[in-house]
Amino acid sequence: MTKRDFLAVEDWSVDEIEALFQLAARLKRGEVKGGLERKVLAMVFLDPSLRTRTSFEAAMFLHGGHAVVLEPGKGSWALETEDGVVMDQDSVEHVTEAARVLGRYADALAVRAFPRGTEWAAARQDAVIRKFAQHCERPVINLESSRRHPCQELADAFTLRERLGETRGKRFVLSWAWHPKALPTAVPVSAALAAARMGMDVTIAAPEGCDLDPEDLQVIRATARNAGAGPVSIVHDQGAAMTGADAVYGKSWGPVSLYGRTEQQRSYFDRHRDWRLTAERMRATRNGKAIVMHCLPVRRNVEIDDAVLDGPNSVVVDEAENRLHVQRALLLALIGHRT
Amino acid sequence: MTKRDFLAVEDWSVDEIEALFQLAARLKRGEVKGGLERKVLAMVFLDPSLRTRTSFEAAMFLHGGHAVVLEPGKGSWALETEDGVVMDQDSVEHVTEAARVLGRYADALAVRAFPRGTEWAAARQDAVIRKFAQHCERPVINLESSRRHPCQELADAFTLRERLGETRGKRFVLSWAWHPKALPTAVPVSAALAAARMGMDVTIAAPEGCDLDPEDLQVIRATARNAGAGPVSIVHDQGAAMTGADAVYGKSWGPVSLYGRTEQQRSYFDRHRDWRLTAERMRATRNGKAIVMHCLPVRRNVEIDDAVLDGPNSVVVDEAENRLHVQRALLLALIGHRT
Amino acid sequence: MTKRDFLAVEDWSVDEIEALFQLAARLKRGEVKGGLERKVLAMVFLDPSLRTRTSFEAAMFLHGGHAVVLEPGKGSWALETEDGVVMDQDSVEHVTEAARVLGRYADALAVRAFPRGTEWAAARQDAVIRKFAQHCERPVINLESSRRHPCQELADAFTLRERLGETRGKRFVLSWAWHPKALPTAVPVSAALAAARMGMDVTIAAPEGCDLDPEDLQVIRATARNAGAGPVSIVHDQGAAMTGADAVYGKSWGPVSLYGRTEQQRSYFDRHRDWRLTAERMRATRNGKAIVMHCLPVRRNVEIDDAVLDGPNSVVVDEAENRLHVQRALLLALIGHRT
Repeated sequence: MTKRDFLAVEDWSVDEIEALFQLAARLKRGEVKGGLERKVLAMVFLDPSLRTRTSFEAAMFLHGGHAVVLEPGKGSWALETEDGVVMDQDSVEHVTEAARVLGRYADALAVRAFPRGTEWAAARQDAVIRKFAQHCERPVINLESSRRHPCQELADAFTLRERLGETRGKRFVLSWAWHPKALPTAVPVSAALAAARMGMDVTIAAPEGCDLDPEDLQVIRATARNAGAGPVSIVHDQGAAMTGADAVYGKSWGPVSLYGRTEQQRSYFDRHRDWRLTAERMRATRNGKAIVMHCLPVRRNVEIDDAVLDGPNSVVVDEAENRLHVQRALLLALIGHRT
Repeated sequence: MTKRDFLAVEDWSVDEIEALFQLAARLKRGEVKGGLERKVLAMVFLDPSLRTRTSFEAAMFLHGGHAVVLEPGKGSWALETEDGVVMDQDSVEHVTEAARVLGRYADALAVRAFPRGTEWAAARQDAVIRKFAQHCERPVINLESSRRHPCQELADAFTLRERLGETRGKRFVLSWAWHPKALPTAVPVSAALAAARMGMDVTIAAPEGCDLDPEDLQVIRATARNAGAGPVSIVHDQGAAMTGADAVYGKSWGPVSLYGRTEQQRSYFDRHRDWRLTAERMRATRNGKAIVMHCLPVRRNVEIDDAVLDGPNSVVVDEAENRLHVQRALLLALIGHRT
Repeated sequence: MTKRDFLAVEDWSVDEIEALFQLAARLKRGEVKGGLERKVLAMVFLDPSLRTRTSFEAAMFLHGGHAVVLEPGKGSWALETEDGVVMDQDSVEHVTEAARVLGRYADALAVRAFPRGTEWAAARQDAVIRKFAQHCERPVINLESSRRHPCQELADAFTLRERLGETRGKRFVLSWAWHPKALPTAVPVSAALAAARMGMDVTIAAPEGCDLDPEDLQVIRATARNAGAGPVSIVHDQGAAMTGADAVYGKSWGPVSLYGRTEQQRSYFDRHRDWRLTAERMRATRNGKAIVMHCLPVRRNVEIDDAVLDGPNSVVVDEAENRLHVQRALLLALIGHRT
């Protein structure tokens, strides 16, 4: 028997993901109870979390299970991720042992590991989550790695369908925003994948040079093609991109070509401080009523203005709530008792 | 339907609070089980906790529910509390989103936020807990804010009745203590409110100039009046205050008029290092047997001497235990299944 | 009624410990469910943990109970452990109150406190865990103190029996390893005790001068004698010690005679960097197939080589899994509902 991981949505078939959405909808309506009795989820956070941690902890509890929350380096041991290393420096435990041992205590493992280091060529390998998956005998769930945030992707796709009804052929704009830090690209990639999977026409609006990983862009294009969506556009004019949009996803990220180069990133960002979702810009969307999305946490009046976030078309809190429901579906699919 | 918060005991009617005490007594006797099945409490600690966190976590569990413990800034995102701010500095999430999102995952929210900043005029507004209550669709419980510690107040009132029987007309002394730091006033105000609510004659013994917030003092006086208690006295002689006391609550706090002024506080405190609950001072109480109270944590031999804390009249551990029972009653009242 | 603590395995009778092993075996086979419904375990970690915390949290949950995890100083209050001290410095709560209060919220208390300070004469008293046991009305479990790691000891003894079958008369080698830090002696002492209790012939292989506490060594010798094992040998040649071994336990520790003297420890350690479990050294064991043990976390290629840890005779992950089962048995014995 081989175990099943959930590292990227595209690792699962279209039918499997559709089944998750159907189950999540039933869960949200309160139609399914139980299924995780005596099941343990071990969550390993190498980076901070509010939504992910709370929604998974609630998801396990609501179905009779339990989530253990570990923060290596804060209360538990700092983890080494390199293979073959002589561990005579700071880290006191290797991911190999952590993954093997946690797989004996828990029915599934969930791991958050943002990109580290100064080389994108290395960070893009997602070594931490892959090593956990390699060494753990139980299913491993990606809680956001360098490349993907698949639980957010599920929630975003579910929210698009929930709010737009028929999504096919509608316009989705992933709109870059200025931010004081160069953020990872896992969320923007996953957001574009969510819309592409729903058959939406995807536009990525970002300043020139604010590139995503080319391979990730290919996956977005392939996903759109498979779902019968129009071609993925990349544009550099935020205002123009908004025209006729049905959904706008505000999100900042650092160009992968400048990954790890702090000074160059800073000057790149300084040139684009006006990229921000304002009420005025949202007026160009379809009937001025495109839904506004963000993964949260959001920096108010930096990425998105108060008036937009607090306005009637903001669905950011619904996206967050839907994290709970899609994750309940995911956990039931991965480790639930058969009924 | 409007939701119900628990930010201050005086926000609830006398009858409602009395009903909580009746339920807490039944809970302590083991007469009530269940009632919180599938219920989630999200606890947000912006300041440390041992009793509050453990007693709420146990309370939820004992009745079939679950508490999620969040410490923003340690493992989850640092929170911004100002409205309208351009969030281009350190904090990455606004309390608005945190409150809205947690209200989707949890059935109630509980928040601890001690006073911050150097201006009492600002700190006394209790902006953090009020914003959580404003933006969260679910009940919000105050786990100690700048102005109140209502769960401690419930436990203290419950303990007074438990240990003194008829409380009306008995003497309660809130006795200031020296401490290396200028502590917040939420607990002394809540302790005085607890005794006043029980109809006790309240004396606040503190060095001259060690003032509480005038509005809080008015609430204490009004509560005493409503409960048919005698007038609230403020005295500056610790020894004299003890005479004939039935209950002595040892507690340090910083004068609100010196709030945020570290140097002046230090010289103020240095003059009053002899304010301490000693076995000798306790001998002046009624038959030398007044019960000794403290919210804990207590600095031994600084606020209260070993001999007093470990003596037969100390009820500090009972107060802590009663936190559990009154909080179980509170949770059942706020989010319990109707039976 | 006196309460029962679990501070050291030798505090319990041989029959009681044998009953724990019998129950643990049944638990591992899935033959026993429930027994901890409505039971709360409060865990106090003064030092970090991954296995201990996760396995106890899972153990409580699997039988219907709940573990509260506290890390004083990180989110809860820093603890004072000295008696009679005037607490006007950093620590804000005394272990006396923490122990008394947690005993009111929880059915048992579990405490981890590694040795502190620069004097072994003081650290060896295990004051923290002993004070918790003294002041708490409920059973106290040692999660690793200065002198013992009794839960690890149970798991190690259980693993020896599980993997070797009849243990009596077989050869157990506790093999010292170089490590960048001088580690505590609780685990090596407990590992030797585990093997001695199983009736194995114990050899302690360590560089000259790398002494354990003499009283602990006496307990190891007495335990071996009581179990009918051969005399405990202490040898200074790692290669020779391996000959004919049935089980090799790799572990680093600092000589107690140099406890707290950083410079002398460093030069002592620098002389012995070649003490390491290599595949070559393991070939001298019985048929080259001795089982390889370690408490984890292990520093790969420092204490034990990759080839050994990942080889077919490594049981380090089984030891960790067995922590779960012996602790389930321990909790059921201490606070389980009678059936």
